[in-house]
Amino acid sequence: MIITEKNIVIAVDAMGGDNAPNAIVQGAAVATLESPGKVILVGDEEKITDILSRETYDSDRLEIVHTDETIDMTDMPRDAVRRKSKASMIVAVKLCAEGRAHGVVSAGNTGAYVLASSLHIPRIVGVSKTAIATVYPTRNVQKRADHFALLLDVGANIHCAVDDMVQFALMGKIYASDIKGIEDPTVALLNIGKESYKGGDLLSTVYRILSNLPGVNFIGNIEGNEVMLGMSDVVVTEGYVGNIVTKMMEGMAETASHLGRYAFKHRLLWRLGLIALSGGIRRLKRSTDYSEYGGAPLLGFKEIVIKAHGRSGAKAITNAIKLAAKSHRDNICGRIEREITEFESLNIAGKFENSSL
Amino acid sequence: MIITEKNIVIAVDAMGGDNAPNAIVQGAAVATLESPGKVILVGDEEKITDILSRETYDSDRLEIVHTDETIDMTDMPRDAVRRKSKASMIVAVKLCAEGRAHGVVSAGNTGAYVLASSLHIPRIVGVSKTAIATVYPTRNVQKRADHFALLLDVGANIHCAVDDMVQFALMGKIYASDIKGIEDPTVALLNIGKESYKGGDLLSTVYRILSNLPGVNFIGNIEGNEVMLGMSDVVVTEGYVGNIVTKMMEGMAETASHLGRYAFKHRLLWRLGLIALSGGIRRLKRSTDYSEYGGAPLLGFKEIVIKAHGRSGAKAITNAIKLAAKSHRDNICGRIEREITEFESLNIAGKFENSSL
Repeated sequence: MIITEKNIVIAVDAMGGDNAPNAIVQGAAVATLESPGKVILVGDEEKITDILSRETYDSDRLEIVHTDETIDMTDMPRDAVRRKSKASMIVAVKLCAEGRAHGVVSAGNTGAYVLASSLHIPRIVGVSKTAIATVYPTRNVQKRADHFALLLDVGANIHCAVDDMVQFALMGKIYASDIKGIEDPTVALLNIGKESYKGGDLLSTVYRILSNLPGVNFIGNIEGNEVMLGMSDVVVTEGYVGNIVTKMMEGMAETASHLGRYAFKHRLLWRLGLIALSGGIRRLKRSTDYSEYGGAPLLGFKEIVIKAHGRSGAKAITNAIKLAAKSHRDNICGRIEREITEFESLNIAGKFENSSL
Repeated sequence: MIITEKNIVIAVDAMGGDNAPNAIVQGAAVATLESPGKVILVGDEEKITDILSRETYDSDRLEIVHTDETIDMTDMPRDAVRRKSKASMIVAVKLCAEGRAHGVVSAGNTGAYVLASSLHIPRIVGVSKTAIATVYPTRNVQKRADHFALLLDVGANIHCAVDDMVQFALMGKIYASDIKGIEDPTVALLNIGKESYKGGDLLSTVYRILSNLPGVNFIGNIEGNEVMLGMSDVVVTEGYVGNIVTKMMEGMAETASHLGRYAFKHRLLWRLGLIALSGGIRRLKRSTDYSEYGGAPLLGFKEIVIKAHGRSGAKAITNAIKLAAKSHRDNICGRIEREITEFESLNIAGKFENSSL
């Protein structure tokens, strides 16, 4: 079968996320109108039908699979995945694993989602660890079409081996080239210094391999203060650090809002100043609005797995569904498989073990 | 000899830092007037004398030790420390190691400084790894007297063992209680989730020990988005992560300035808005001005070692010298030794190996 967007089916966990099921169902409804594929909403049929009754959507492109179990944000992942085998998230993942859907989207409990995907969807041959790749806003010093860069892993794993991180670079590069439409995206390693020997054995070995790897446009190490510059389209790091970095950016944005609210409330002159700046602030917010991207892919699985932000609104969900459909159409998983196989064959041949700096 | 501030001698690397020797010598000159101890300036005597000739200072409290070698910011640490045994930084560290000074201050090459200190100044008995502790601005949700919290390690090490991190908590607590004047400072672990089991074996074991350690006011894990809230007076992390977190905060501040400059230049309305907000921006800058603290201590050495920021101006240097004198007077190193010994005796007795969560 030729893959066109028309054949593509995306399973959506209707009950996961802070604004579920409302925002999820509304976002899916819009997706049936704006995207030619089909959506399967998994969750409480009565609630879903009720929300849909107030929305416009293409009923030929929307199916509901009922289940009344859900995994909450506060559930312990391992426990939830074991006990709640009929939870909307698990059923959605299984639809994808069984080939009834080509991709799955959830805004629910991240830990449970990673675990459920690992249990049911096979990894691409040769991939040792999957990774969550997220986009984050930058100062766009490379003058790309948008202000985002890709950071991975941000929490599928805690620590990694050398090969895992090299694979993250390959997977991130393929994904970035696809979603950003850049031919040869730049790749950097997050480290504590510019020099190739920095960061201990793990990072210096990854540095050496990436420097010599054909097809990877490696620009070297970037440091914490350079993360926001956007010098690189893809930033590779271990999950532990990636998680802290991503959350710090959220914390900074929250602090900026807090300062703004404080200033607005406390002095008339400051309020006037903020009003004068409001056009600029709106523009900044627009250019840093992650919901345009819809979600973060879990890279390394044989099917498309998209994690939408827990706070996703309807627009983010629509975009996450479109992202899943596009990623399947563009055969991201197949392209990752090809590059990983190539790398592994080079690696087995000892090419990188013997290369010197 | 009773330690009073009058007897205290601080050795200062006059040639290290972006603004050396001018800012260093000027800062030291002010310190001789504002602090009762003595300063030894180590570096090029001719240059130092020339700068001093334009400054007011107390000549009874200032000595110069001449050397014409210097370590640059771009020098490779290991190499520089080996080849340049007469560099101002090394000589200053040695003055401290030999007992001619009670503390040392440098704004020079951090890697070389850590290495030189490790080579010449003994560690406190029982301390397995020294740590760089830095203050960073927070939203001060604990309503302390100032807006800073202490983060360690930020780069003396890359990775750590369990005991190292527990010792960081002890050292950080003692230092924070001294410089902030808080009786029982709160201590947190930087991690990827709130739950005690998060972050892998290393962090979950550290969590368990800190939860049970008498004398440590441990509040649990904090995540990346909480770093800036200031929920905790002391934040413990591995050097690799601490380095990236600290530099990210610098990067954020730089990005905020960049956005401000852009807005100021691009639209009259935005310029007026910024002018209206300038009082608030000034207040924010004042409350986040690290130069009040002067520098970051390298904790775990038997003498006081203070790393001033590479970009330090005269005021930061004056404060770094005062900080070194105060740390010596308050016997920070002795207090660390006592607490570490206590912890190690508990540890050897197996108290924490057997404790359950």
